[in-house]
Amino acid sequence: MDLKQPAKDAARVLTSYLTYQAVKTVLNQLKETNPARAYWLNNFSTKEALQDGETYLSSLLKENVELAMRIMLVRQDIAEGICEFLPEMVITGIQQANIEHRRQHLERITQLGDGEHALESELPGDADVAQKPAIDSDCFPEQA
Amino acid sequence: MDLKQPAKDAARVLTSYLTYQAVKTVLNQLKETNPARAYWLNNFSTKEALQDGETYLSSLLKENVELAMRIMLVRQDIAEGICEFLPEMVITGIQQANIEHRRQHLERITQLGDGEHALESELPGDADVAQKPAIDSDCFPEQA
Repeated sequence: MDLKQPAKDAARVLTSYLTYQAVKTVLNQLKETNPARAYWLNNFSTKEALQDGETYLSSLLKENVELAMRIMLVRQDIAEGICEFLPEMVITGIQQANIEHRRQHLERITQLGDGEHALESELPGDADVAQKPAIDSDCFPEQA
Repeated sequence: MDLKQPAKDAARVLTSYLTYQAVKTVLNQLKETNPARAYWLNNFSTKEALQDGETYLSSLLKENVELAMRIMLVRQDIAEGICEFLPEMVITGIQQANIEHRRQHLERITQLGDGEHALESELPGDADVAQKPAIDSDCFPEQA
């Protein structure tokens, strides 16, 4: 699996998210010090505008240089402060989430196998499950 | 600035994005090997459903265990393959983007200062710019 493009895309998404975090941080600071400017920035920073961090900053630079420069500095600070921890947080997080999903699934099919707690109405009935290996019980959705 | 919560939030966003990447990868594989199942998975994986990777996987586990397990494995592979490179990619990327934004801004205000290329109709006129330090020329939007 070629991972160059996924890595670039993930970096782009993360950068846009850090830009959003920086906007949120500056907004919270402005609410204390300059509510009128906070109001203006809040209106400028719609969800659509923040989808792409670089386009957002380009537009903001044309409207308010000071705020744009401040957000650029804050997002760099946040990036330098958190990025080194992200790989372990994400990889460990995914491993643990995967284990938890498997555990919940096993618990569900075991309960179904007992014939006492058929929690999932959309799954095949108990008799059906009993005739097949548990892991395959809901493998195959209707073919479209 | 407390960065614990931003780090957690960024890890969550990145995890959801890697889940989306994994779904895209599995979809592309299925298009070759099992178009009917690719069609089903594509319908199941709406943009809304993919907003939260864990909720998406929980739902998919109840509909199609095999596909859910496969996506969980693929996202772990992608995470382990790209996460170590992300901190440098993101930090360097942000530094370079910030430099580029500043360069473009300087170029714009220099051109405006020339009085020859007033590219930005929304910026103050040339005379206005000439009377103030360039960096402040468009700092203050109308106070709302």
